[in-house]
Amino acid sequence: MVHIAMLGAGFIGRFYTNSLHGLRSKDRVVSVYSRTEASAQKFAEDYSTPFWTTDLEEAIARPEVHLACIALPNNLHAAAVRLCAKHKKGVLCTKPLGRTAEEGLDMLRMVEEAGIFAGYLEDLCYTPKFLKSKSTIDSGALGRILWARSRETHPGPHSDWFWDKEQSGGGAILDLGCHCVEISRNFIGKDVRPVEVMCWADTQVKPIDAEDHAIGLVRYATGAIAQFEVSWAFRGGLDLRDEVMGTEGTIWINNFLRTGFEMFLSGAGSNYLAEKSESTQGWIFPVGDEIHELGYNAMFTDMLNAWEQQKTPAETFYDGYVVNAILDAACRSAKSRQWEPVALEDWRGLQEVAPISPFREHDQDHWFLAEEHTHDGRRVLILKEKTSGKIVQKTAEA
Amino acid sequence: MVHIAMLGAGFIGRFYTNSLHGLRSKDRVVSVYSRTEASAQKFAEDYSTPFWTTDLEEAIARPEVHLACIALPNNLHAAAVRLCAKHKKGVLCTKPLGRTAEEGLDMLRMVEEAGIFAGYLEDLCYTPKFLKSKSTIDSGALGRILWARSRETHPGPHSDWFWDKEQSGGGAILDLGCHCVEISRNFIGKDVRPVEVMCWADTQVKPIDAEDHAIGLVRYATGAIAQFEVSWAFRGGLDLRDEVMGTEGTIWINNFLRTGFEMFLSGAGSNYLAEKSESTQGWIFPVGDEIHELGYNAMFTDMLNAWEQQKTPAETFYDGYVVNAILDAACRSAKSRQWEPVALEDWRGLQEVAPISPFREHDQDHWFLAEEHTHDGRRVLILKEKTSGKIVQKTAEA
Amino acid sequence: MVHIAMLGAGFIGRFYTNSLHGLRSKDRVVSVYSRTEASAQKFAEDYSTPFWTTDLEEAIARPEVHLACIALPNNLHAAAVRLCAKHKKGVLCTKPLGRTAEEGLDMLRMVEEAGIFAGYLEDLCYTPKFLKSKSTIDSGALGRILWARSRETHPGPHSDWFWDKEQSGGGAILDLGCHCVEISRNFIGKDVRPVEVMCWADTQVKPIDAEDHAIGLVRYATGAIAQFEVSWAFRGGLDLRDEVMGTEGTIWINNFLRTGFEMFLSGAGSNYLAEKSESTQGWIFPVGDEIHELGYNAMFTDMLNAWEQQKTPAETFYDGYVVNAILDAACRSAKSRQWEPVALEDWRGLQEVAPISPFREHDQDHWFLAEEHTHDGRRVLILKEKTSGKIVQKTAEA
Amino acid sequence: MVHIAMLGAGFIGRFYTNSLHGLRSKDRVVSVYSRTEASAQKFAEDYSTPFWTTDLEEAIARPEVHLACIALPNNLHAAAVRLCAKHKKGVLCTKPLGRTAEEGLDMLRMVEEAGIFAGYLEDLCYTPKFLKSKSTIDSGALGRILWARSRETHPGPHSDWFWDKEQSGGGAILDLGCHCVEISRNFIGKDVRPVEVMCWADTQVKPIDAEDHAIGLVRYATGAIAQFEVSWAFRGGLDLRDEVMGTEGTIWINNFLRTGFEMFLSGAGSNYLAEKSESTQGWIFPVGDEIHELGYNAMFTDMLNAWEQQKTPAETFYDGYVVNAILDAACRSAKSRQWEPVALEDWRGLQEVAPISPFREHDQDHWFLAEEHTHDGRRVLILKEKTSGKIVQKTAEA
Repeated sequence: MVHIAMLGAGFIGRFYTNSLHGLRSKDRVVSVYSRTEASAQKFAEDYSTPFWTTDLEEAIARPEVHLACIALPNNLHAAAVRLCAKHKKGVLCTKPLGRTAEEGLDMLRMVEEAGIFAGYLEDLCYTPKFLKSKSTIDSGALGRILWARSRETHPGPHSDWFWDKEQSGGGAILDLGCHCVEISRNFIGKDVRPVEVMCWADTQVKPIDAEDHAIGLVRYATGAIAQFEVSWAFRGGLDLRDEVMGTEGTIWINNFLRTGFEMFLSGAGSNYLAEKSESTQGWIFPVGDEIHELGYNAMFTDMLNAWEQQKTPAETFYDGYVVNAILDAACRSAKSRQWEPVALEDWRGLQEVAPISPFREHDQDHWFLAEEHTHDGRRVLILKEKTSGKIVQKTAEA
Repeated sequence: MVHIAMLGAGFIGRFYTNSLHGLRSKDRVVSVYSRTEASAQKFAEDYSTPFWTTDLEEAIARPEVHLACIALPNNLHAAAVRLCAKHKKGVLCTKPLGRTAEEGLDMLRMVEEAGIFAGYLEDLCYTPKFLKSKSTIDSGALGRILWARSRETHPGPHSDWFWDKEQSGGGAILDLGCHCVEISRNFIGKDVRPVEVMCWADTQVKPIDAEDHAIGLVRYATGAIAQFEVSWAFRGGLDLRDEVMGTEGTIWINNFLRTGFEMFLSGAGSNYLAEKSESTQGWIFPVGDEIHELGYNAMFTDMLNAWEQQKTPAETFYDGYVVNAILDAACRSAKSRQWEPVALEDWRGLQEVAPISPFREHDQDHWFLAEEHTHDGRRVLILKEKTSGKIVQKTAEA
Repeated sequence: MVHIAMLGAGFIGRFYTNSLHGLRSKDRVVSVYSRTEASAQKFAEDYSTPFWTTDLEEAIARPEVHLACIALPNNLHAAAVRLCAKHKKGVLCTKPLGRTAEEGLDMLRMVEEAGIFAGYLEDLCYTPKFLKSKSTIDSGALGRILWARSRETHPGPHSDWFWDKEQSGGGAILDLGCHCVEISRNFIGKDVRPVEVMCWADTQVKPIDAEDHAIGLVRYATGAIAQFEVSWAFRGGLDLRDEVMGTEGTIWINNFLRTGFEMFLSGAGSNYLAEKSESTQGWIFPVGDEIHELGYNAMFTDMLNAWEQQKTPAETFYDGYVVNAILDAACRSAKSRQWEPVALEDWRGLQEVAPISPFREHDQDHWFLAEEHTHDGRRVLILKEKTSGKIVQKTAEA
Repeated sequence: MVHIAMLGAGFIGRFYTNSLHGLRSKDRVVSVYSRTEASAQKFAEDYSTPFWTTDLEEAIARPEVHLACIALPNNLHAAAVRLCAKHKKGVLCTKPLGRTAEEGLDMLRMVEEAGIFAGYLEDLCYTPKFLKSKSTIDSGALGRILWARSRETHPGPHSDWFWDKEQSGGGAILDLGCHCVEISRNFIGKDVRPVEVMCWADTQVKPIDAEDHAIGLVRYATGAIAQFEVSWAFRGGLDLRDEVMGTEGTIWINNFLRTGFEMFLSGAGSNYLAEKSESTQGWIFPVGDEIHELGYNAMFTDMLNAWEQQKTPAETFYDGYVVNAILDAACRSAKSRQWEPVALEDWRGLQEVAPISPFREHDQDHWFLAEEHTHDGRRVLILKEKTSGKIVQKTAEA
């Protein structure tokens, strides 16, 4: 049984607690901090939490607390980590880790110097579909990874602090891109160095300083390319999709809007409210169990098992730092309009990787180009002669 | 923490245990029974189960056991329940409850007379999509339920005993129909009496005595109709779909083959094996987390919470008995080629229900028939005059 | 170039003409009949039709007319066919052919005795997906056909005469079932005799004499079973789906509501109206080209080519008669609550067919039952010993 | 009736002719040119074409020819157009128009100076889903367009000349990007100037000089962004998808791999071959009617109607030239790694357009930011005070 201090009693703190207390869990939130008294007290009542406070350090320092879980606006992450380090409590930090790579690296150093357990709460790297995709990719079934697309768009965040750059540290890139970047990075391989980023960003529909829409390309050392698409301007709900292309296969994931669950409501019955849906009648696409589908259950299982067994969880502060470094490059690129290098002063992955190779041997004399089964039952092979470089077409019976 | 005796160490017993021990669960299987020593011993090793035996009563009677979980062939359910009643242990029984309503009723009486806790392990009434659908229907959003379709088909069961009518008690109707019937019954309302059943069944592709394909219609007291489609002859994997029509809406559920997760594999990478899939290359449709998606986690949560809190779980032995009675009628109908009444000597639901009414008032003088928006932007209303019964068409601007 | 008399200027007459005149067609409607002068005149203007009339015989008898196309309420089909026979004009008749098999057979005899060309306008047996499915099935790729499901449901017809049993001759069974029955019949094989029908029907939501919801099972001579589901009570648009199961494969067709075309509209932009859709905002599922997707283009191509080449079209009056006979049995069954034989006094298909066989040889000594790849990489085979009838389980490395 | 000279008798020439002669068409190919005698002769036999030749000019110059249709490798387009201009024949040119904008502009000038009819055969701007999407967008239903994604990827072209940069003029960008760019341009507005392009390209899996994979961003004068994704390295068939985001809505189009048509084949029946599919067993996703779904029918209808009525078709040589200019910028960008301006020396659209505005008024004092319906039934509004710029959160009952 793990005793957790929940730092933050808002939307995400409650979501985390629903997962931590859910099903037949043995774990419990034993202490809760909120910036406002009313919110802390309400949380404590709803979740039968024995201790609540508006003093951050007090919430962490309680002797019964094993782990603190940071569910606070981005500008408060570092301070909370510092207190965990001071009190030698394990720490779980929501995404993004820092507002910048510099801040992320600071936080990484704090936990490493203090020798405390630290986990990075990147829930979308724990969804059921992600986990199965990752194990499939790791098995080699997709061959070498060429491209990954990760998209998260919706009509805008649900809490006011996201819209205030002071608190949030950025816009859609930081808020949503952190998910997309880490998903693709897992698929391409965490050991493969992200080299450079090109990013377009704009403020198209929201009167804010930060961007509300961005598209970025991240080039990795193997030659693989990752594409992220983030927006607070999407109409239709929460669009959460990933795609991967490998030399031997393809994966398409739809995490939210099309999961085999479809409803039509005339509206004349009672009012039904699907989460993050923009409509309560017509065709609606709910998710069966949002907490599970969004990865929270598997994430906390990994985190708390890792803490108990003194192992490293799948997503660490180091990962959060790498994500921050990629997003920093994206933000720089959005301004400079150049490919910007990913600045990683602390790189722990591979120094050298074999690049993806376009040469696949067909036979001793030819490279393979393409093969197609035609309507009339023949098999067309297009090959390149190794010596002459000439392209030749061969037809065989299928 | 609940201590469970797992009765049966085969496919379903392991599936149950994966769910019971899964995530951050506080519950544990403490005793396991199998008909073969090797199987019991292997299970005990794999799941760190402290006690294993080939003596059914011994597995149940252990003092540390709170609840026994029956994961045995159908012909052994009643005997296991009897032992639980004798030793005053709570009991969870896999589906179907009995092989017949008579057997199901016997089992119901055993647990009621012994005053022990009893739960019916109908996992498909706990899938995330089912639970959200049921709460939506219960809220009234779909209006009155007119029709439900529940389909479960696959290429045939994975264990030999299913194919042996002696052990299984039946074919596809009993094996798969129990799920379909209980799903529809939940959607239409458990209080609504199932009145009669018409069923077609045949042995089309498997050289067995029992049917391998059946379609049944179950008529309920409100006039709602439920349709089940079951087969061991389907090609393409596990087809698990439900549909519901109400006066104000529609729900479509795909639990397995189309859940927003799609893979193409050339086969030249490593071998990937999707569960219950018939192929390991080409387009494959895995499920992210089978245990969760098939309802096991929510089912055991409900069961063990109910046991701890001395409440009634959502699916009880009484439900299992009603399902048996409907399936008995289906089997009789398949032979008699008649609508067969559902014989329920113990009916605990409503005696009277209001039938679905075709009359919906449009205005003081008219019943509503239909409304359509036409291509040229008009709204066509088709009405029936209450007094004359005449059908009239009215056109309005949209 | 074919000159057509369009008999009926309503919704379906216009739909037909859009197809006949569409794309780069060489054919033209040269004469139009409507029961009302205004409607005939309006049609003639819209489609540049040189001749319009409210006299049915006059529309047909015009010397420039090659073919008459019946797009009239069901109770006027027979009279129109009689006039075509009298004037020796080819005739295309909309679905259903007759209101009963007796009427259908009369119409069949009229055209055969007159020696005129006759085509049955069953558009849903000409949709692009249907045609490709049928050629796939005919190639043997699905093995032997075991089951077909055809479903057509929507919130109710768009013209008043459908609701009046006097004019329509029936309810949802006749209006929609004619499509479903002929689709399944094509998949199972037109030469295979439909033997008997079991049908449930009810008037659940519309205050009419005819049924607004029905489910029927049609048993064929091979043992194949066809299932039709028809309703005027569906909420969500036009649900038009077919499924087929064969011993070697499965086909799933969605003709309308899910065709890879999805829109979300907030409603704050201009008003968009999807055909047969129940909503103009939220998620909407339009069809790209309704006329093509619903089969009209391929249908008229087959019909007019057949007329020019003096061949038989794919769908004939004989087919329309067989459909009527099956629907008659369905209507009788809905009342008698019995399996009702399909009365076909004129059967032109096979007298004897080989029934589907459940016996598939695995090796000399065993029948095949099932095969499954397990999680741990083994291949489980379940077989039946030919001599003993015993069921045995064998495990091999995958 | 239009008489067409088909220039090229390969895959695309046959595809075009299937469409031109298809259904009940009044048009005919009367003359065919191929580089090889055998191919010309075979074509003439298959399509009953009265005249065949291996002399390009002869094929065009025939007096009975109204229009020439260029279905040749890219390096032969300009020469063929020149001959059409010389002989004053109308010309339809396959995509891409030129290999570069310079060549495209030359061709545009040739036809304008000769005063001949010219159409650009961009079939994917005529698919049923495209046409309905475009009319929806043009109606204003999506609000202002913010973003469009167009993706075309497959495992590599079917003819050898595509792989030879000499003949093709480029790689995946030119071959597939021409479709994607013109689709997005239509959605954003053809009058809106494409300003600049950023493109990543690589040769990942094919041993060729040209790129086999590219991703590009095209920024338009309104601030809208278009994204194209092209590849000859995709595994799984032909992936042809478009997405559009507007301020008031979203459109998702799947033109090929997921169109509501799904088949599972065990492979033990006869062999079925889906077009451009990589597999003949397992789950297969055919297209009902490829010619119609890919836009050929609507394209030739528009082209030939325009020719007869002396109007401008929807896709012109000018469009082809603009597409070439955008692709040139993409290719430059792939090398320079910079945003490259789209060089359009002949711009015929709007000089000034209103940029997309992020300011949407909520009330007199506030800009709108976001709105969400929460789980507990409240409606949360996030607004920005116009004067202070402060972000405020308001909660109302839903």
